[in-house]
Amino acid sequence: MTYDYDLLVIGSGPAGQRAAIQAAKVGKRAAIVERSRMVGGVCLHTGTIPSKTFREAVMSLTCAGQSSQLTTVDRHRPTIQELMHRVNSVIEIELQVIARQMSRNNVDILSGSARFIDTHTVAISCDSTDRQVTADFILIASGSSPAAPPIDNDHEVVFTSDDIMQIPKLPSSLAIIGGGVIGIEYASMFAELGVKVTLIDRNQRPLEFCDIEIIDELLHQLRQKRVNFRFGESVKNIHRIEGKKSVAIELDSGKHVEVDAVLFSIGRIGATGQLAIDKAGISADARGRLKVNENHQTTTPNIYAAGDVIGFPALASTSSEQGRLAACAMFGVVAAPTPAGLPYGIYSIPEISMVGATEQELTASKVPYEIGVARYAEIARGNILNDSSGFFKMIFHSETRKLLGVHCIGTQATELIHIGQAVLTLGGGLDYFLETVFNYPTLAECYKVAAYNAANKLHKS
Amino acid sequence: MTYDYDLLVIGSGPAGQRAAIQAAKVGKRAAIVERSRMVGGVCLHTGTIPSKTFREAVMSLTCAGQSSQLTTVDRHRPTIQELMHRVNSVIEIELQVIARQMSRNNVDILSGSARFIDTHTVAISCDSTDRQVTADFILIASGSSPAAPPIDNDHEVVFTSDDIMQIPKLPSSLAIIGGGVIGIEYASMFAELGVKVTLIDRNQRPLEFCDIEIIDELLHQLRQKRVNFRFGESVKNIHRIEGKKSVAIELDSGKHVEVDAVLFSIGRIGATGQLAIDKAGISADARGRLKVNENHQTTTPNIYAAGDVIGFPALASTSSEQGRLAACAMFGVVAAPTPAGLPYGIYSIPEISMVGATEQELTASKVPYEIGVARYAEIARGNILNDSSGFFKMIFHSETRKLLGVHCIGTQATELIHIGQAVLTLGGGLDYFLETVFNYPTLAECYKVAAYNAANKLHKS
Repeated sequence: MTYDYDLLVIGSGPAGQRAAIQAAKVGKRAAIVERSRMVGGVCLHTGTIPSKTFREAVMSLTCAGQSSQLTTVDRHRPTIQELMHRVNSVIEIELQVIARQMSRNNVDILSGSARFIDTHTVAISCDSTDRQVTADFILIASGSSPAAPPIDNDHEVVFTSDDIMQIPKLPSSLAIIGGGVIGIEYASMFAELGVKVTLIDRNQRPLEFCDIEIIDELLHQLRQKRVNFRFGESVKNIHRIEGKKSVAIELDSGKHVEVDAVLFSIGRIGATGQLAIDKAGISADARGRLKVNENHQTTTPNIYAAGDVIGFPALASTSSEQGRLAACAMFGVVAAPTPAGLPYGIYSIPEISMVGATEQELTASKVPYEIGVARYAEIARGNILNDSSGFFKMIFHSETRKLLGVHCIGTQATELIHIGQAVLTLGGGLDYFLETVFNYPTLAECYKVAAYNAANKLHKS
Repeated sequence: MTYDYDLLVIGSGPAGQRAAIQAAKVGKRAAIVERSRMVGGVCLHTGTIPSKTFREAVMSLTCAGQSSQLTTVDRHRPTIQELMHRVNSVIEIELQVIARQMSRNNVDILSGSARFIDTHTVAISCDSTDRQVTADFILIASGSSPAAPPIDNDHEVVFTSDDIMQIPKLPSSLAIIGGGVIGIEYASMFAELGVKVTLIDRNQRPLEFCDIEIIDELLHQLRQKRVNFRFGESVKNIHRIEGKKSVAIELDSGKHVEVDAVLFSIGRIGATGQLAIDKAGISADARGRLKVNENHQTTTPNIYAAGDVIGFPALASTSSEQGRLAACAMFGVVAAPTPAGLPYGIYSIPEISMVGATEQELTASKVPYEIGVARYAEIARGNILNDSSGFFKMIFHSETRKLLGVHCIGTQATELIHIGQAVLTLGGGLDYFLETVFNYPTLAECYKVAAYNAANKLHKS
C-alpha cells in the first residue's frame, strides 16, 4: 500500500526537526505533527532557548562579569518584563529560522494533537476536526513535561520550569525543589538577579555525573551569591500562606522555609499520555518514557522514538542527534554511531561543560591518569573578561598521554569544551596541546597552561 | 670558561618569557634583561594586552552586542578614563602573574638597558651604573616600536599605537594612517565608541593574508559604523592646525581630511638600534629586524632572536612559541616544529580568526575544494548573543573531504577557530563535523551547520 508519508514525526522539537530533515535529504516525504500552533517543541518555547536567553539577558542586564568592577556604571536590577522582552524576541527569530528550514526541505507541518489508530495510522485532531494520516515510519519525538508539583501549580507562587518565566515579578525569595540540571540553572540565574534562593534536594550532592571538583567550585560560587543549599533533605509539607502570597515549606528534618515563590524541578515525564500508544503496540514506563534499541526503534518495528521521551540525557544536542540516527536507521542510510566524546553543557552562571571521563570514573575503573589544571586568573583573557574564578581541568592517561576527559567551569565553558572534544575523538593527547599555538589572548590558552601543568607532573613522577 | 648564565634573554615580552622558562625547565640558569622597570614588554604595556582590554572595555561599556536592543538601558558613551581604569587594572594583574611565574622558575630579572660587548657579554646600564653579564647563549627578544610618524608625535593630536591610549579625551574624528592589523583594530574600536574614523592605506585592500569574503564582511560592518575608507591613497602632506587642536591631511589624490586626532600605524621597527649588535657580529635590516634560520639562530651561532624583532607575524602567540623553540634548539631539547595549523586572530570589533588555507591560496595552487558556510543568524546562540552578522566558513578538499581551512568573523571567532585547528592538525575532515554532537546552544554549532552545507554541495556535484 502507499502511505501518505514515508516518515511522520510526532513533535517538532530538536529530535523531530532533525529526523524530518534527514529523511527529506534522502528524498523521503516527511511531515511533522505539532500540537501547539508553533514548531519548536519545549526546547524553543519553554525549555532550552528561553532559559538560555533568559540567562544571557540576566548576565547582560546585571552586567555580570566585567562591568561589576566599573565604578561608574551602577548595577541594574532588571525587571521580569525587560528579561522577557529579550527572550520573546529570540524565540520569534528562532521560530522563523526553523520554519524556513522545514519549508526549504519540503517538510510538511501538520497542526493538531496526534493519536495512534494503528501502527501506520495517526489521527490528528485540530479544532474539533479529525483527520487520519498514514506513514511507513513514525517517530515519536513528543518530548516531556514537568512532573506535577504536589500542590496546585497556580503560576502565582507555585511554578514548574515550564511556566517559571510567567512569574509576574521577581520574588525576593525563591525555593527550588530538585537540584538537577534545570534546578541548578535557575538557582544560579535567580541568585544572579539578587533573589534569595533556597535549593532543596534529596541527594547529598547535585549533578553526580560531573567532576566532583567542578561541582565543588559551583557550589562555592553559588553560596557566595547567597544560595542556601538543603541537600539530603525532603519536603514533608508545603502550603500556601493565604493573604501573604507566600509559601511555607516544612522539611523532614524539621526545618521550616518561608518563601515568596517555589519552583518545582523534580524531573520530567515523557509526553506519551495522550498518544494512545497502546494502539501501536507500545507501552511506556511509569514516567511516560519509551524504551528503544540502539537504532532508536521501539518494540513496534516501524515506530521509533527520540529525544526527551526516551529519557537521559534529554539535551537538545543529543536529541537532535538521536533524531538523525533514527531517520538513518529507518531508511538504511549508513551513519556513524554517536561518537564517545559526547559533551555535556550546564548553563548555570558560571557555566559548566565536560567531555570524556571524570576522575571518579577513571579511579573506579583503575585507569592510571594525571591531571593538568588552569585557572582563568592565570590566563590573560580570563583577566580581560574579569572572570578570575574560572577553573579548567584535563585528564591524561599516565602511560599513553592520551586525553581522557576535559572539565570546565567558567565563562564560555560550553564552547571551549569542543576543542578538547576534537582532540579526544581524533585520538590526540598531551603533545597536541604542548605543540599547538593558540591565539593570544584567548580562554583556549587554558588548554596550553593545563597541558604544561600535566607535563610537569608526568615528568616528575 | 664559566658564564654567569646559560641563557641571557634581552627583553621580557612573550618570546623572552617563554624562552627563559623553557631553559629553566631543563635545569639551565636563565635571566632576562628588561629596560623598563616592569616585565612584560610591549605586549603587556602598550600592545596586545592594553588594546585587547580596551576592546573588551569598549564592548562592555557601550553594551555592544546584546543590550543594544534593550530599550531600557541607555547606550553609555564611556570616557577614556573609565576605559583606562579597566586597562590599568588588567595590566597590574598580568604583571603579577608574569612576575610570579618568573620567580617560580628561578628566572632572574635584571633591570637596565642591554648593550653587546662581545658575543658572550652584555653590558646592562641602569641609573648611570654599568655592569657586565656573560652567558653561554643570548636570545634577542627586544621587540619592536612603531615607525616614527612624519610629523612630531605630540601625544595630543598625533599618536602612534604605543601611545594612543594616552589620548586625553575621545576625539570626535580620528584619521588612522596604515590599515594593517593594528590600524584595523583601532579603527573598529574607535568607531564603536562613536568616533568618526577615516582609515587611509596605500593598498587597495587591507589584510591580504585573510580570506577575501571575511574581509569584505569586515569592511561592510565598519562602513555601517561610519568608518570612511581611503584605500589606494597616500598622504601627501600633513600638518597641525594651530589654535584649533586638529590636523589637516592632504592626500595624493587631492582629497583633504581634517580630524581631531591622527593615529599612525605604518608598521613597526625592530628594537635593535640601541643594542650595539655589531659587537656581536650581527646586523639588522633597514627596519631594524634580524634574520634567523629555522632554529631562530642569527649569523652568530650562540645568539638567537625571536618575537617582533624577527618580523612577521609578530603576534604574542607565535612569539611565545618562537621563544620556546629557540631555547629548545640551544640546549638540544627535542621539540616538535611549530605545526602547520597556526591560527591568526585579529581583535577588531567584530573579531576575525583563521587557520589553514584561504580560498585564494587554494585556487592559486589548484587544489580542488568545496566550502561550507554558517551564519550566526541561523545559530541559536548567535541570536541569543544578538550577533546576527557573524559569518563562518570551512574549506574542505573536494576529493579527500579533509579540512583545509577555517575562517570566521564574529563574536568569539578567536576562540572558535581552535576547534577547527585541532581537526586540521589531527587530520580530520568533513565527517568529523557531521558526526559530532555539539552543546546546544553554542556558537560551535557553526561547525555542524557549515559541514552540512558543504556536504550538500559535495553530494550534488
